[in-house]
Amino acid sequence: MLQAVSPLALAARIDEYFSPRVIAELDNNYVKLAKLKGTFGWHAHEHEDELFMVIQGRLRIDTEHGSVQLEAGELYVVPKGVRHTPVADQECVILLIEQKQTTHSGNEANAYTRSIADQLRSLD
Amino acid sequence: MLQAVSPLALAARIDEYFSPRVIAELDNNYVKLAKLKGTFGWHAHEHEDELFMVIQGRLRIDTEHGSVQLEAGELYVVPKGVRHTPVADQECVILLIEQKQTTHSGNEANAYTRSIADQLRSLD
Repeated sequence: MLQAVSPLALAARIDEYFSPRVIAELDNNYVKLAKLKGTFGWHAHEHEDELFMVIQGRLRIDTEHGSVQLEAGELYVVPKGVRHTPVADQECVILLIEQKQTTHSGNEANAYTRSIADQLRSLD
Repeated sequence: MLQAVSPLALAARIDEYFSPRVIAELDNNYVKLAKLKGTFGWHAHEHEDELFMVIQGRLRIDTEHGSVQLEAGELYVVPKGVRHTPVADQECVILLIEQKQTTHSGNEANAYTRSIADQLRSLD
């Protein structure tokens, strides 16, 4: 029997905010799981779109073109080049899907910036 | 205010099984929404992985390497080249993420095969 990936079950093993962990690969993309609380910080990914999907809780994403409010089960794609920051007033669990070479905080390092190697640490 | 995408709300507008509809784009990938009931049919995508995520209900995916059972909220990536068929004993709602050039039924047309143009029809 092959094993499904359960983001919600895996989220229980994450004890740090804004520290995405790779839970699946899809061609040149990583599917990442993250727990968020607070404001991440403004940045852009010049060449890559970024998909956010809320698994638990709710998330606001502020962008240079306005804000979007995501409830659990909803998704939004931040287009390449658009400056944005996730803002979680309460803890939430999200999926991120982005290209393997996409850097965590885009063109602007911040206190939360994580390397790809850090994000690839197993949650098993 | 920017608009989030709600797969579950959009699914109410789908009245045909195995007829995926594009609800978002992520670089060279489409995020598709589909309602499934029954068995789709065996096929493979030679060059592209395919992500399945169950939004509502449950789905079994039979593959040449075994089966995987997905409950709501769970996901699984069928690796490129692996023969598989979705099997939904009851109606379920799923997200598919695959490359834009990925054909619906892979290398084997069947009664459910849909063109990309068909899948791009708006759900608005």
